[in-house]
Amino acid sequence: MTKAALIVIGTELTRGIIADKHGRLVSKEMTGIGVHMSEIVAIPDDGSITAVLKALKKDNDIIIVTGGLGPTQDDMTRQSIADVFNSELIEDEECYQELVRRVGKERVLGANEKQAFIPKGFTVMKNPNGTAPGFYGEEGGTFVFALPGPPREMEPMFYSSVLPKVKELLDIKDKARYEYTSFITAEARLEELTEKYPAIEWGTRFQDYKISLYAESDDKDEVNRAISSLQGELGPYRIVEGDVSALGLLTDKLKGDHLTISVAESCSGGVLASLLTSMPGSSEYFLGSVTSYSPDVKVNVLGVSRETVKRSGVVSKECAREMAEGVRKLMDSDVACSITGVAGPDPSEGKGPGYVCFGFSGKGKEAKAVTLNYTTWGRDSVRRRSSVSAMLFLLAYINGMDVEKMSREWSNI
Amino acid sequence: MTKAALIVIGTELTRGIIADKHGRLVSKEMTGIGVHMSEIVAIPDDGSITAVLKALKKDNDIIIVTGGLGPTQDDMTRQSIADVFNSELIEDEECYQELVRRVGKERVLGANEKQAFIPKGFTVMKNPNGTAPGFYGEEGGTFVFALPGPPREMEPMFYSSVLPKVKELLDIKDKARYEYTSFITAEARLEELTEKYPAIEWGTRFQDYKISLYAESDDKDEVNRAISSLQGELGPYRIVEGDVSALGLLTDKLKGDHLTISVAESCSGGVLASLLTSMPGSSEYFLGSVTSYSPDVKVNVLGVSRETVKRSGVVSKECAREMAEGVRKLMDSDVACSITGVAGPDPSEGKGPGYVCFGFSGKGKEAKAVTLNYTTWGRDSVRRRSSVSAMLFLLAYINGMDVEKMSREWSNI
Repeated sequence: MTKAALIVIGTELTRGIIADKHGRLVSKEMTGIGVHMSEIVAIPDDGSITAVLKALKKDNDIIIVTGGLGPTQDDMTRQSIADVFNSELIEDEECYQELVRRVGKERVLGANEKQAFIPKGFTVMKNPNGTAPGFYGEEGGTFVFALPGPPREMEPMFYSSVLPKVKELLDIKDKARYEYTSFITAEARLEELTEKYPAIEWGTRFQDYKISLYAESDDKDEVNRAISSLQGELGPYRIVEGDVSALGLLTDKLKGDHLTISVAESCSGGVLASLLTSMPGSSEYFLGSVTSYSPDVKVNVLGVSRETVKRSGVVSKECAREMAEGVRKLMDSDVACSITGVAGPDPSEGKGPGYVCFGFSGKGKEAKAVTLNYTTWGRDSVRRRSSVSAMLFLLAYINGMDVEKMSREWSNI
Repeated sequence: MTKAALIVIGTELTRGIIADKHGRLVSKEMTGIGVHMSEIVAIPDDGSITAVLKALKKDNDIIIVTGGLGPTQDDMTRQSIADVFNSELIEDEECYQELVRRVGKERVLGANEKQAFIPKGFTVMKNPNGTAPGFYGEEGGTFVFALPGPPREMEPMFYSSVLPKVKELLDIKDKARYEYTSFITAEARLEELTEKYPAIEWGTRFQDYKISLYAESDDKDEVNRAISSLQGELGPYRIVEGDVSALGLLTDKLKGDHLTISVAESCSGGVLASLLTSMPGSSEYFLGSVTSYSPDVKVNVLGVSRETVKRSGVVSKECAREMAEGVRKLMDSDVACSITGVAGPDPSEGKGPGYVCFGFSGKGKEAKAVTLNYTTWGRDSVRRRSSVSAMLFLLAYINGMDVEKMSREWSNI
């Protein structure tokens, strides 16, 4: 494995005046060509670069340094690299002429001339947007690349000079990488499950409303088998191919089938509606929603029967089914779903936080209702998880799947 | 000079999937209290933390570590700090009980329980927004602070626990500090405004739905004069004393006056309802809401007249007023408000993104409507800003203020 480190020099970074931009760019591109980024280090321009360079040189095949190449006293990158890489600074004739061309002969004398010096044996990288050129060279098995700090100078040079050179040096063949998305599953639980397939390199990343899951392996069949088995264990729609969202899966279906939707919410309190309207163009499918927090609103606005509220309570499959049917008729949408449950922290109607019922209704289709009991609770978590669950269930309902069976197959929610 | 280093742990950083947020925040605040930041280091969660910690411990008085405190295998910060700071991990009873409270007794067993272990002799820092507590301790002249990685967990802990402790260590006597909260104002604009009062040390911190504003000065009268002048410039409720939220201000009023509320949303698409239901106990005042994305839902469910839709359009003060009156009658609440506007990115009815109308209705009160035209737009921003604006306007409406005058007085929104 090729290891690389990035050193970003700038007192404006270590004083918190600006945020670093190079770290993400460099690490994303280096990772993309199979290089392992071992460290991204930001340091002030106080000369500490020498010690940092020395330490990183021991363990890395490639070091990229940005900043500290200018004409002023605190620009010490050039000298520091020469020292650590056992070289000495010599004036580069081509750099000198370029500098003359840029700043004029009389202004090259003095501090500016420093910028025409590079370590002996190193190669110059031209800087189309500034006076300080970059350079690279190798010593003791480590390549070092020096680039100016300002993003408008550094970024074009990184892409035109650094990245092609690194690719040339490495000639590495990446393992194939497969992306999946997991819903309403705790990250720790997902990692426990993937550990059963140690021949595959797994990675997870927690995001709002989903977890991205990566599998790296040169054996595609092995990845397919592992994913199938995980899908079987967790139940339908819990692990989906690609980097997707529950919202995207549902709204693609709605748009593809030209279906309109309305929703009735209780414990999720508007979270589902705000998700469904978060993307531009959502008025194409979303007609509206009712948040019915009070039982009277469930009865008077959504048409849930008083009898149901009395007999089964508002946290019940019966109530959820009537809410979904009620909002669909009220808004005249093609499909509808509902959420009613206990967000917590206190129990309600004898049901604990995390107990949530969902209802589904569609034109010319039998209405359905299911119950889930989330084990990871917390008010915000129940509101989010139930919104994601409702979208996945509704997708299954539209696809003609048995949502009751699906809710029983979902484990570890 | 006190020297500090920050270690940010996360493979998502060294793979370039996300950009680091902690570096700038920590270095800005540490620099602000006179601490020299010697390094900001991002590393993957592959165990390299131990070597980095050891190296930084030699030269720094303070080390802050973020990330790697979770329950999974690659969360190695806890063990690494114990090793490098010559301690050992022991289970903290209070942390264990907190964990049981959060995830349930049966789920504490296994990987999760790891989070209740901290190095012996260290002090726990509570984490109000997650399961992993932080901790700090000292050995060999270096203090180390460990915090979880997610910004919504790390940031409050940094401000409430780390910064005060560092100040205490450095024996920094704070100037008197006054806290305010600013709503629907860009952070850059607020900084421009406060720069007019250079004798006061100002600080701002951007948060969801608000900006916290701090004024440090030993002259209380000077702070009062500056704040009054800023309040005059921005308009009512734009800068409020204390660390408050628009939601808190409104719901305190509703609870104090025993008023129930319902809301009708269009462009905010459920964001206002989800805010009003985000706190436990919200069913005390919140009856329900209608999200009316389609004009038909505005007419058929909320009772907006077809004539109004035809004559003035759905993005109009007339429509907003009828939506507020309609939802109040439908849900039989004491007060109600409505939001209808253009979230963007495309214009609608000849109005550009950021053009939003608000309606207000109350039992026995004349209904009102106002318009705002947000200059900082972007779909998500318009949805959030209009939800916050609606809460502040409704508070003013309940307090008997002239909301039309208030909307004209609001500048720089």
